[in-house]
Amino acid sequence: EIVAAVEALLSPKEQPLKGCKIILTSGPTHEPIDPVRYIANRSSGKQGHALAAALAELGAEVHLVSGPVTIPDPKGVKTYHVETAREMMAQVEKLLPADAGVFVAAVADWRTDSEATQKMKKEKGQAAPTLKLVENPDILATVGHHAKRPKLVVGFAAETNDVIENARGKLVRKGADMIVANDVSHSSGIGERGVMGGDRNRVHLVTAAGVESLEEASKDEVARQLARRITEILKR
Amino acid sequence: EIVAAVEALLSPKEQPLKGCKIILTSGPTHEPIDPVRYIANRSSGKQGHALAAALAELGAEVHLVSGPVTIPDPKGVKTYHVETAREMMAQVEKLLPADAGVFVAAVADWRTDSEATQKMKKEKGQAAPTLKLVENPDILATVGHHAKRPKLVVGFAAETNDVIENARGKLVRKGADMIVANDVSHSSGIGERGVMGGDRNRVHLVTAAGVESLEEASKDEVARQLARRITEILKR
Repeated sequence: EIVAAVEALLSPKEQPLKGCKIILTSGPTHEPIDPVRYIANRSSGKQGHALAAALAELGAEVHLVSGPVTIPDPKGVKTYHVETAREMMAQVEKLLPADAGVFVAAVADWRTDSEATQKMKKEKGQAAPTLKLVENPDILATVGHHAKRPKLVVGFAAETNDVIENARGKLVRKGADMIVANDVSHSSGIGERGVMGGDRNRVHLVTAAGVESLEEASKDEVARQLARRITEILKR
Repeated sequence: EIVAAVEALLSPKEQPLKGCKIILTSGPTHEPIDPVRYIANRSSGKQGHALAAALAELGAEVHLVSGPVTIPDPKGVKTYHVETAREMMAQVEKLLPADAGVFVAAVADWRTDSEATQKMKKEKGQAAPTLKLVENPDILATVGHHAKRPKLVVGFAAETNDVIENARGKLVRKGADMIVANDVSHSSGIGERGVMGGDRNRVHLVTAAGVESLEEASKDEVARQLARRITEILKR
């Protein structure tokens, strides 16, 4: 019975999310230091792109705002390419209102204070430079407290320690309905390459009601389970 | 006559570099800030990998030390994958002695003073952090002044201003026989995407004898011309 219900829910003919507009971010952001250097993070975009595809398969109108990744745009999804956190924030706000906002991207918390317009030179006998950082816009918190806040706001949190505790704090501070938390430490024991850049993931769904941990699975399978959960909430 | 001579030189049967061991670096380096963040640069590895392939086609035993790139290992070349400047330096020194060292990689001049072992957290009400940088090893200068210095040492210099002047200074300071300089500024007018990440390049060969500028061409064609030039010098 349960299997049949799930299969019905997942059948492309069913399209339970038909008519739902979902904004989703994925990938890293790159924050330029000068014309050739930048600050980056290890997000591959695999989990976010897989989730965008899974939501589109359920009939949603998915708008994917993607940082610089080397994987192809998912099928059936409108993809917008951005580089920096500020560009990602602007594109997301342009796409509001929406039924759900799902923020998978590993947005850089900081950028350099001032981007150099010429390549910074190493000078003999001079000390190495210091990079003064400033805070980037917090896309999840901005949308979580937005006048046009979607009905459902989901954030992702990549942590290397105190995974659940950090996610609980974010749920409240950022005004999210759910934080999908995962352990991206090298010692997580997930896959051969760890979570970042790898193909497997183990996530914990943190809501006001509590914590639910999914089994370790491929990022595609995790995406399908998350898409199902998002459907349940939107159709509640 | 000239065409025939060049064709003979380029014929796979001729293999003028047979018996020559060449160390070549390519791609960017990534310098970790913490487990998820790093400092990177826009090198795609296309020019370095193309040159490695072109030298191998001329019969050289090419050892390619590659930073993190998304392009495949070139055929007929032994490729070593590294991430940081320090790893690249160590791998290059392990490969000495060699007949030639060709340093195409865009090695990060600086890394952070101390890599954080846990993900740096953004804390409410706290100022954004400052990244203190320290100098990385200079692979070109180290090999240019090495006890096991190859007969031919070629460096690459990506510049956004004063291209030739900067390259002349590097030739002397780094103990190189040739600097291949190019303009990677957004305003270089080369290709649609500029040189970095793009498929075209225009380079200037700076030696003690003077400057020779090659025509703008595809990176594969630039690689073939450089391989020919390297062959002439090694066989002199």
